Amino acid sequence: MDLATIIGLVMTLSLLFGAMAMGVGIGPYLDVPSMLIVFGGTTGTLLIGFKMEQIKGLGSYFKIAINPPKEDFLELIRKMVQYSTKARRDGILALENDANNESNEFLKKGLSMAVDGSEPDTIRDLLEIDMDQTASRHKTNASIFDQMGGFAGSMGMIGTLIGLVAMLLNMADPSAIGPAMAVALLTTLYGAMIGNIIGAPIANLLGIRDGDEMLAKTLILEGIMAIQSGDNPRTLEAKLLSFLPPKERESQFN
Amino acid sequence: MDLATIIGLVMTLSLLFGAMAMGVGIGPYLDVPSMLIVFGGTTGTLLIGFKMEQIKGLGSYFKIAINPPKEDFLELIRKMVQYSTKARRDGILALENDANNESNEFLKKGLSMAVDGSEPDTIRDLLEIDMDQTASRHKTNASIFDQMGGFAGSMGMIGTLIGLVAMLLNMADPSAIGPAMAVALLTTLYGAMIGNIIGAPIANLLGIRDGDEMLAKTLILEGIMAIQSGDNPRTLEAKLLSFLPPKERESQFN
Amino acid sequence: MDLATIIGLVMTLSLLFGAMAMGVGIGPYLDVPSMLIVFGGTTGTLLIGFKMEQIKGLGSYFKIAINPPKEDFLELIRKMVQYSTKARRDGILALENDANNESNEFLKKGLSMAVDGSEPDTIRDLLEIDMDQTASRHKTNASIFDQMGGFAGSMGMIGTLIGLVAMLLNMADPSAIGPAMAVALLTTLYGAMIGNIIGAPIANLLGIRDGDEMLAKTLILEGIMAIQSGDNPRTLEAKLLSFLPPKERESQFN
Amino acid sequence: MDLATIIGLVMTLSLLFGAMAMGVGIGPYLDVPSMLIVFGGTTGTLLIGFKMEQIKGLGSYFKIAINPPKEDFLELIRKMVQYSTKARRDGILALENDANNESNEFLKKGLSMAVDGSEPDTIRDLLEIDMDQTASRHKTNASIFDQMGGFAGSMGMIGTLIGLVAMLLNMADPSAIGPAMAVALLTTLYGAMIGNIIGAPIANLLGIRDGDEMLAKTLILEGIMAIQSGDNPRTLEAKLLSFLPPKERESQFN
Amino acid sequence: MDLATIIGLVMTLSLLFGAMAMGVGIGPYLDVPSMLIVFGGTTGTLLIGFKMEQIKGLGSYFKIAINPPKEDFLELIRKMVQYSTKARRDGILALENDANNESNEFLKKGLSMAVDGSEPDTIRDLLEIDMDQTASRHKTNASIFDQMGGFAGSMGMIGTLIGLVAMLLNMADPSAIGPAMAVALLTTLYGAMIGNIIGAPIANLLGIRDGDEMLAKTLILEGIMAIQSGDNPRTLEAKLLSFLPPKERESQFN
Repeated sequence: MDLATIIGLVMTLSLLFGAMAMGVGIGPYLDVPSMLIVFGGTTGTLLIGFKMEQIKGLGSYFKIAINPPKEDFLELIRKMVQYSTKARRDGILALENDANNESNEFLKKGLSMAVDGSEPDTIRDLLEIDMDQTASRHKTNASIFDQMGGFAGSMGMIGTLIGLVAMLLNMADPSAIGPAMAVALLTTLYGAMIGNIIGAPIANLLGIRDGDEMLAKTLILEGIMAIQSGDNPRTLEAKLLSFLPPKERESQFN
Repeated sequence: MDLATIIGLVMTLSLLFGAMAMGVGIGPYLDVPSMLIVFGGTTGTLLIGFKMEQIKGLGSYFKIAINPPKEDFLELIRKMVQYSTKARRDGILALENDANNESNEFLKKGLSMAVDGSEPDTIRDLLEIDMDQTASRHKTNASIFDQMGGFAGSMGMIGTLIGLVAMLLNMADPSAIGPAMAVALLTTLYGAMIGNIIGAPIANLLGIRDGDEMLAKTLILEGIMAIQSGDNPRTLEAKLLSFLPPKERESQFN
Repeated sequence: MDLATIIGLVMTLSLLFGAMAMGVGIGPYLDVPSMLIVFGGTTGTLLIGFKMEQIKGLGSYFKIAINPPKEDFLELIRKMVQYSTKARRDGILALENDANNESNEFLKKGLSMAVDGSEPDTIRDLLEIDMDQTASRHKTNASIFDQMGGFAGSMGMIGTLIGLVAMLLNMADPSAIGPAMAVALLTTLYGAMIGNIIGAPIANLLGIRDGDEMLAKTLILEGIMAIQSGDNPRTLEAKLLSFLPPKERESQFN
Repeated sequence: MDLATIIGLVMTLSLLFGAMAMGVGIGPYLDVPSMLIVFGGTTGTLLIGFKMEQIKGLGSYFKIAINPPKEDFLELIRKMVQYSTKARRDGILALENDANNESNEFLKKGLSMAVDGSEPDTIRDLLEIDMDQTASRHKTNASIFDQMGGFAGSMGMIGTLIGLVAMLLNMADPSAIGPAMAVALLTTLYGAMIGNIIGAPIANLLGIRDGDEMLAKTLILEGIMAIQSGDNPRTLEAKLLSFLPPKERESQFN
Repeated sequence: MDLATIIGLVMTLSLLFGAMAMGVGIGPYLDVPSMLIVFGGTTGTLLIGFKMEQIKGLGSYFKIAINPPKEDFLELIRKMVQYSTKARRDGILALENDANNESNEFLKKGLSMAVDGSEPDTIRDLLEIDMDQTASRHKTNASIFDQMGGFAGSMGMIGTLIGLVAMLLNMADPSAIGPAMAVALLTTLYGAMIGNIIGAPIANLLGIRDGDEMLAKTLILEGIMAIQSGDNPRTLEAKLLSFLPPKERESQFN
């Protein structure tokens, strides 16, 4: 679990609620009708603009964002190099057991195809289709959070306009104007908070998670192609290490 | 029919009208001249910026957005694999009846060409042109909703400016300022509602529908190319399943 | 002539002027200095940012937007198929007269080269350069309207700031504040009208016109390549019809 | 020298200063501290975000924008066709003198390589690297003006916020509020003027100048490749003329 | 060390603090709770949207921005040409010592592979993977500064909304309204300063630094490929000089 997101959420919300508490207290900032407009309206517009199953997945995308599958690229490279060494020494069929016991679905699929003797082009084709489609689904999922931010901002503005119109029609009592306008501004505040504390950052984080997963899949794809064509394990390692930042590169041959 | 969009629309509008009703009532939010400016002005600018036939299609694009042709990718893959099995067993001419009875126009066209013995490159060329042009038309159609949102927002602002100028020239009676400004704000409210409840979400939904249709067409295209070159149906199925998310993949050979 | 643009322009302007008339009358909305700032300033910034000859072409781009050359794609496909049939029956030299009498410059050029026996690669090269350069010029021309919209909005804001500063320095007479601010807002109103009724919609329309012209040129290019290589006219027709929406496809061989 | 930019600058500034003069006079619009914030702050942020040498080049980019090297494409095509004719008649070595006397550096370099007998791929490679790198430098240079506009707008807003805070803390004397707010708005006005009269239009103009230079270089590149491979000068001319708009095409063979 | 950034920072901040001091003094512009909201909230949202290790790298990216590794392209070209001359004269193995003593990691890696007799395609592959991955990491790092700017602006707006609501609920004492609103505006001011003095300019600068590093790596890659294939050093120099602006090109053969 990546604690940064949780720490960031707690930190940001504490500071904002602290600022509210220091002024007029948190109470005046909580207004149920305003919440209904922004939270309900944002949910409503997401329902309009996405498929039900995509909305249902929101929770699991959020979970992936804050608790991503651990990608240890160096460990993965080690594994690919070991498979490569084994295949060169004992033949590719020696990897059959490894393929069956592999927990990473993508690696398992690729290894099995290599063991089964599929054509290199067929393997590359299938794995690349898988990667492209995964990346495309990830992009759509991240876009839900982006759109959520945009829709929340718009609902906030719509709520404020509704409140302003009501306030402007009731200006007989001057002492009521301030509080009425305060309430009208709350939807804008809620919209800005949803958009900037949840929407934009989580969409960004999902993009980073996707980058990590795609890098892992690229390492696997390149590894399997090298295993199948019987490349030298040292050459394979050098190639795979090139995907990592220079200071993280660590060879198992030293 | 995908209920999400209808539910989202009803939910969002109920919340907003509920918020109006709870304050000063819905009546003050309904102003015919303001509606004319925003709805008429948005229609007017769409007429300026698009071809008449594109504007006329708005209703049918909306219908496609909320009631898309059902795409059952797994079912489609099953069908392609069956055709492939049949063609390998009985020859490609055995698919002539299937081609004639096929209701999906794109699949029918591809199958017929394969049965007629067209060159693979010719088939791929024709089907890809069809896909590219369809995607390009879909993009334009979705952009009408996007532009509608932008134009509605602008017309809302223009209406508010017209109202503000009138209000500023009539400040003799202070009690009239509030209501005049309230009315001036209504066009901005209408514009924001059109743009954010209809424009942006429907444009997004049309993009998702287009993605689904393109995926179905890709499955068909890959299937027909494999049928024609006599590929192994299991290999074809493995390839086509790679286009789906891992947990939706279900082989008919197990 | 495509009436949609004219209807849209008349409709939008009527609604806006109607709204002005219903309030304080059209008179107060017409202010010559404000018009000079926005119309003059927009022209001025366009002169800074484009070449004189591009600015001079504004009128003709506008004319193309509202009165585009008629593109009858089906008719064009018919013609290409007829040329193809003739060339297969009587040899490509039989098209010499057709080439000379052709009014479409692009088709004439391509046909003449084919009749003159130019290499297929040379013909494709020349026609593609022509298309690319045309598309690039069209994009620049459409961008003038886009930039016009942006510049008009900015000039509107600059004018309002100038007016606001003047108003703020003259607040001795409270009854003059309202009218002074009203006048200050007029430049913003003018800028928004230019940008959203002319700028953005016409830029969009020019993009659509360009798409139509490019489609026509693609049909011609594909047709000439097929004529030269002696393809079957039915195959050519099938290919060209793939560029059109399914329901517009109509074969002349049925 | 392209007068459009100068005319546009004079026209826009005259109108704006005229509007100021007509109101409260130009004096109140000139405030040295506000100018320092916007002009100094914009320069400062440009220094942060670019390399010193790029900032130093600002003046020369501006000069290129308003006084570009004259590109006479038709004349250039004529020259390429003449070189081509000469090379076919007298051999490519006959161009040695022309290469030495050529003032256009890019053409000189290409011709010299052709005369020296470099491989066609080497020549194309070198000239394309030159073009790509030039285009990339031009894009960065134009982006300085774009960023200048953005930074000026931001500095304007920051200045206004600083002024507003000062004003809000000094509201004891109501008659001072108006003038204080007027001064606060001046930075926003300056920022908008820099961004919209210099920044955006000059960035756009530099993009157009780059397009012209790239077109000239493309004509030279294509010409040299054709000269070296001994293409027919008429074919070369037809190809090069395809880069120009139809009505500017003028053959020297008629 | 590139002094421009430091000069720009000092200059911009001096001007802004000078403007504050000239008005009501710097004191009223410093408000700890407002700072906590903007600085803390920006840090918090960055923590949500990025991985902890990326946030930790912020300081070192900033250092690279203001004190980049010196890239002397002409010197680098000289070195590549010398290596090339040596390899042609004494064989590629003569570069073994140079490879071992090379301080530039990228050049060392490429040279070593060439000396070890790796295949040209393998070398190009590895070096290009390295470049692509480096560019992609650089882009993400620059985006942290961009997002920091956006998040700071949003936190500024959220803080101002919180302050406005508090102010509107406490309008009993009119003399307190001004100062309360002044404080509310401070978060917007802080957000705008972070975004426009640090965020956007540093992101831009990191993009420029990345461009320089990529250019250096491209020169190395092209050089190594030429050394390995035994190209003429003069041809190599001509090619590498094409990457530089014309007036910086300086041949060592003259």
